[in-house]
Amino acid sequence: MRFKVGCRLTYDAKVDSGFVFNIQAAHCENQTVLEEKLVVEPDVPLETYVMPESGNRYIRFQAPKGAVSVTYDAVVEHTPERRDPKSVSAIDLKTLPFPVLPHLYPSRFCESDRLQRAALSDFGDLPPSHERVTAICNWIYERIEYLRGSSDAHTSALVTLVDRAGVCRDFAHLGIALCRSLGIPARYVSAYAWKLDPPDFHAVFEAYLGGRWYLFDGTRQAALDGLVRIGIGRDASEVAFADFVGQVEPTDMTVFCEAVEEPADDQPTTDAISLSES
Amino acid sequence: MRFKVGCRLTYDAKVDSGFVFNIQAAHCENQTVLEEKLVVEPDVPLETYVMPESGNRYIRFQAPKGAVSVTYDAVVEHTPERRDPKSVSAIDLKTLPFPVLPHLYPSRFCESDRLQRAALSDFGDLPPSHERVTAICNWIYERIEYLRGSSDAHTSALVTLVDRAGVCRDFAHLGIALCRSLGIPARYVSAYAWKLDPPDFHAVFEAYLGGRWYLFDGTRQAALDGLVRIGIGRDASEVAFADFVGQVEPTDMTVFCEAVEEPADDQPTTDAISLSES
Amino acid sequence: MRFKVGCRLTYDAKVDSGFVFNIQAAHCENQTVLEEKLVVEPDVPLETYVMPESGNRYIRFQAPKGAVSVTYDAVVEHTPERRDPKSVSAIDLKTLPFPVLPHLYPSRFCESDRLQRAALSDFGDLPPSHERVTAICNWIYERIEYLRGSSDAHTSALVTLVDRAGVCRDFAHLGIALCRSLGIPARYVSAYAWKLDPPDFHAVFEAYLGGRWYLFDGTRQAALDGLVRIGIGRDASEVAFADFVGQVEPTDMTVFCEAVEEPADDQPTTDAISLSES
Amino acid sequence: MRFKVGCRLTYDAKVDSGFVFNIQAAHCENQTVLEEKLVVEPDVPLETYVMPESGNRYIRFQAPKGAVSVTYDAVVEHTPERRDPKSVSAIDLKTLPFPVLPHLYPSRFCESDRLQRAALSDFGDLPPSHERVTAICNWIYERIEYLRGSSDAHTSALVTLVDRAGVCRDFAHLGIALCRSLGIPARYVSAYAWKLDPPDFHAVFEAYLGGRWYLFDGTRQAALDGLVRIGIGRDASEVAFADFVGQVEPTDMTVFCEAVEEPADDQPTTDAISLSES
Repeated sequence: MRFKVGCRLTYDAKVDSGFVFNIQAAHCENQTVLEEKLVVEPDVPLETYVMPESGNRYIRFQAPKGAVSVTYDAVVEHTPERRDPKSVSAIDLKTLPFPVLPHLYPSRFCESDRLQRAALSDFGDLPPSHERVTAICNWIYERIEYLRGSSDAHTSALVTLVDRAGVCRDFAHLGIALCRSLGIPARYVSAYAWKLDPPDFHAVFEAYLGGRWYLFDGTRQAALDGLVRIGIGRDASEVAFADFVGQVEPTDMTVFCEAVEEPADDQPTTDAISLSES
Repeated sequence: MRFKVGCRLTYDAKVDSGFVFNIQAAHCENQTVLEEKLVVEPDVPLETYVMPESGNRYIRFQAPKGAVSVTYDAVVEHTPERRDPKSVSAIDLKTLPFPVLPHLYPSRFCESDRLQRAALSDFGDLPPSHERVTAICNWIYERIEYLRGSSDAHTSALVTLVDRAGVCRDFAHLGIALCRSLGIPARYVSAYAWKLDPPDFHAVFEAYLGGRWYLFDGTRQAALDGLVRIGIGRDASEVAFADFVGQVEPTDMTVFCEAVEEPADDQPTTDAISLSES
Repeated sequence: MRFKVGCRLTYDAKVDSGFVFNIQAAHCENQTVLEEKLVVEPDVPLETYVMPESGNRYIRFQAPKGAVSVTYDAVVEHTPERRDPKSVSAIDLKTLPFPVLPHLYPSRFCESDRLQRAALSDFGDLPPSHERVTAICNWIYERIEYLRGSSDAHTSALVTLVDRAGVCRDFAHLGIALCRSLGIPARYVSAYAWKLDPPDFHAVFEAYLGGRWYLFDGTRQAALDGLVRIGIGRDASEVAFADFVGQVEPTDMTVFCEAVEEPADDQPTTDAISLSES
Repeated sequence: MRFKVGCRLTYDAKVDSGFVFNIQAAHCENQTVLEEKLVVEPDVPLETYVMPESGNRYIRFQAPKGAVSVTYDAVVEHTPERRDPKSVSAIDLKTLPFPVLPHLYPSRFCESDRLQRAALSDFGDLPPSHERVTAICNWIYERIEYLRGSSDAHTSALVTLVDRAGVCRDFAHLGIALCRSLGIPARYVSAYAWKLDPPDFHAVFEAYLGGRWYLFDGTRQAALDGLVRIGIGRDASEVAFADFVGQVEPTDMTVFCEAVEEPADDQPTTDAISLSES
């Protein structure tokens, strides 16, 4: 499918400040940016960077005191692999590709080292397959309340597990932590999300199964086959869409993700969905 | 039933030190100390105290550098109330006796203020009755691993819930925290425990239901109708069997609790068991 | 000195609800309630209770759906003991009165068991005297930012120590935790506070030194000799000014504490201030 | 200087198991492996991997049930840059090289997002220079007790800050967390450490200052100019020297790091020491 995605972010810089953004659709397998336009006001020099290990795309600039806006528009061809979930089976940890190994490690917001007994007790009976990660997502969906304002920038998976409330970021962190606890590599994904209501940046996660990264979303708020990838990372700490040095106040934000052509069959997918192998 | 209970605790005081013990069988409803003997060596003056709000009995003394031993022997008549669990029903929080109110508050090792969503999600469908607390104990028994060395003196219910391992103290804390989260007053009980193997001081909890305090034990390691009460408190922080000022090293400990006459029917009780109303 | 104190609290009960308040000036040594008036609307039957171990005064009632208000007015004679801080010296833990012992235990919001190394490292060189507790308060005043909204009902002393921000409740908890870590009994005090700006309920703490409870306030926001005691407890979990069963929304709150006659010398006291021995 | 480094690690595999090691001296700027020999018993096929973003070297193999040993010996030429600490000054966050940015993010064991107020309050007056990081290390050295057994594999910088005890891993984590809180990129380094007594793998940290990574060690247990790098990462979670899939019990471990030729002047260095730019 083809999506029009983008955002408009505005800020008030109280002093000369530095800005870093990671809002462009990623260049990755099964996702092609057909057109894109990025406008920063005021007109300042932009640095760009693609992180080799993730493919995340960054822009950075310095802007003087005053209003700052970033507007991004893109058309993205998005053709994820689809598999029968039953066919996406176990991985053998002993032969995991080396670059995938770090996604087994605990990270700031996904303390998988603390959750091994809990994960084994609750999900250990299922095989290390797509079905097991789906069971994790179902548990999260049923037991964690989606509640704006219930968490903050310091909230981690352990806290979410205890407090049983959070937003998409927290749902993703808990899913990642439980997967890693069970020996399933998992990573955080920020995305433009088709059908997300209200429109916003979205956070989901990917688990490494049968040689590919498969998408999962414990919130069930967006279409699994309509997630246009922006960034990947160990957790939210590595995939901020905006970061500042200086003193910056956000003033407004709009985000959108629309299908260029609505599909005939508009049912939620039941396929296992994967963008990339690495 | 009648029990012979007691302990022998020995220490090496590296310097002149102060000792406080709470090891004597409590004076409370349905529990009568028929005989008891307490011997402290060396022969130093003893202070005694019964805490009015709990009935806990303390002895305190100072001992010079050197070996210290405390030996306690008692015969206790123990006649708890027995009820059909199905008949032990809801309490109305609005009319709870005032002295019971503090047992709804969170305490150091029972952070019930953090567990309300979790407790409601997992046990909220059951009525606020004996059955609900039994369901909590069953969950704890099935999901928390009894594992010596997995917890320490700082471990609280939140940690046990996440780590899924602990000892009797931790099982009691988690039961208390979940009860309080659901509006059921609960408190910590230290006890001599019949059939506990190996013999040791035991920790269980009581929940306030239908106008009485009922005993519960998520470990299932001792006989619920063979728990000779030593102390009660908000949690373990208030019911240490021994405390020191100075520099003291434990050297040995034996604890025992035996039925004076073995009952004909030696089946685990299925009754709701309660020692006291207050 | 003589103070006029009181409050007016209004609520919207969404359903029939139960209310418990602890807002009346305590009956305690060196504090005499000369007159007082408590009005609850609607006109429902009131239960009252004085907790024996604390002297805290509670009222409780049930009110139907609708507006509820509680208005309290009192005139209180307040004559704390004043000592030269230098004369308030060490306590001998071995001979502490038994009823004071529980104030050495950790509690929900004062995890003194975790802070022993930190407290010893930072304050261990000072003698266990009034001066040491003053040093703790000075450290808190200088290193913890008083910041509304930086903490919530779950925030404990450990969190405040790490986050370095909080409100009066948090400042009191940290002071209590550090004292207990050093073997100094300490407890939480809720109070009407003279000169507090803006007027509100205030929270401070008392440390047990030289046979009395002395008042301390790391916020430096109120007059230490103008704290009209409402309640005492292990920490805030035991001294809520209002508690509900049902569904209740606060709609308004005013609190006041005025000197009936302004003193000639209006300097902040440098005395060690103590209301009570027990 | 030239060092002979190495280790011998032995295990008992209870079942067929997978092993990953990161024990080889890194290939990096100012560090050259002149000779090295790695022997694994039994004789199984080895996979090797160099992680592009870190230069860490991994070996992986599967071994059947039974004894397993890994022996590594190397001679390493180690010529770190030396600077006058006073000359190593501030970095401008706005122009930080992109690949360095992730080392500002919080990680599992370095919760820098939580420590900003604490770090600013305690070290904010110093310029963002070598001197500031040295002040952090001095504080850690003076206030954290080096105590074997006081921490475990789950211990993070927040816990160490509160508990005030730990081992080299914990000292490094706290240093990293405080640096990142202050906007100084920092990373974890595992190393063979000259003069470490008893010999063991060591953990220190690097801070990015003035365009290079400088070494710091809050433990003061090893020579700062005798740290032969093995691995770098966000924290210990990324730099385990050994990892297993299966069931593996360590049976023995020896580690060594010796100067091939003892230097004439054997004084601890006061230079700012840096191996690499990236």
